[in-house]
Amino acid sequence: MAGARRPGAEISDLTAKRLSVYLRSLEDLQAAGVTTVSSQAMAEKFGLNSAQIRKDLACFGEFGVRGVGYVVADLKDQITRILGLTRDRKVIIVGAGNLGMALADYAGFNAGGFRIVALFDNDRGKVGGRSRGGVPVLDMEALPQIARREKAGIAVLAVPAAAAQKVLDLVSRAGIKAILNFAPAQLKARPGVTLKAVDLKIQLENLVFHLARAEEVHR
Amino acid sequence: MAGARRPGAEISDLTAKRLSVYLRSLEDLQAAGVTTVSSQAMAEKFGLNSAQIRKDLACFGEFGVRGVGYVVADLKDQITRILGLTRDRKVIIVGAGNLGMALADYAGFNAGGFRIVALFDNDRGKVGGRSRGGVPVLDMEALPQIARREKAGIAVLAVPAAAAQKVLDLVSRAGIKAILNFAPAQLKARPGVTLKAVDLKIQLENLVFHLARAEEVHR
Repeated sequence: MAGARRPGAEISDLTAKRLSVYLRSLEDLQAAGVTTVSSQAMAEKFGLNSAQIRKDLACFGEFGVRGVGYVVADLKDQITRILGLTRDRKVIIVGAGNLGMALADYAGFNAGGFRIVALFDNDRGKVGGRSRGGVPVLDMEALPQIARREKAGIAVLAVPAAAAQKVLDLVSRAGIKAILNFAPAQLKARPGVTLKAVDLKIQLENLVFHLARAEEVHR
Repeated sequence: MAGARRPGAEISDLTAKRLSVYLRSLEDLQAAGVTTVSSQAMAEKFGLNSAQIRKDLACFGEFGVRGVGYVVADLKDQITRILGLTRDRKVIIVGAGNLGMALADYAGFNAGGFRIVALFDNDRGKVGGRSRGGVPVLDMEALPQIARREKAGIAVLAVPAAAAQKVLDLVSRAGIKAILNFAPAQLKARPGVTLKAVDLKIQLENLVFHLARAEEVHR
């Protein structure tokens, strides 16, 4: 059955996110020279749930080898295929402020299936510069042309909230179908465009939730 | 029953994250002058699942009013209490590079229950400066003293991967019990310290998963 399943068929958004976490863990294991791993060992090492791992991977056929666990390289390849990460995706970042610059050089944003083509900004003082890692900052006006020429598939919005909807519309018109928004604004995407928002405050609130629970126990 | 439940009791990490999402939606509704909302209307406006909303909120007693929905201000207060967000938490950010500077001024990181006290860096060229929003950059050597004096409860790590474990140990020794790590490194926290990692690549991979699925449909 392995590999027979089409990418993404019947997989929920949450399952896909967990598969990404497994993929990252498998990459770490492979880098450390580990060739096979059990769901238990993987769960312990990376703070995951072993029953959930088995359940998630059971959907995709028989990856595991009884008594040995998963073959790290095989499982990594399978998940890569399932997530549609087999070919490189070109990414543009709009907004060359601190956040855009940080994202341009963020480990992972520019590796393993992703290639950041350019940053865009409307500040003439920034245009012509580069991120520390070498990503060029281009003029916003060149965005539609460059996005089409480079066949950029993904745009990351790192612009102020007030400009975000306008920028979303611009990149959508330029043919980009997947957008990751860091601006704290509720945006509306046209049909056929996938828009995901990153809300970093949720991460802080989640920490407080755990802190509050710990304080409760110690009271 | 409403309000009788202790903060965090028997709530899973995932439920807590969804509650944060509801809280953000309720803040948006309140800012727009909306006073009551049904689970359906909330789900439609913010792209959520109405059955999940009802299920999540049912655990906390009877918030809803039949035929009216939830009273926005009340539900917001309840969730704020459940998540332990009733008092301000002081946050320090370690690393005053692009990412640290961006986070210091990130809307939400410095509002609604959170106050960023300082950035810390060991680069003398950065020490003495400020983020655009005015957060001061202090010397790493002053971190233990300032963290204790200010009673900082949360540290955000925005340092290179190679330095992250050392910085985690330093902030833990300074008495900080909750740490949000942006460095792409697997870190080990001492018992009693909650460590959460933000992996932004998962967000990109999730976009690709949806792109690949859409491409499959259109093939």
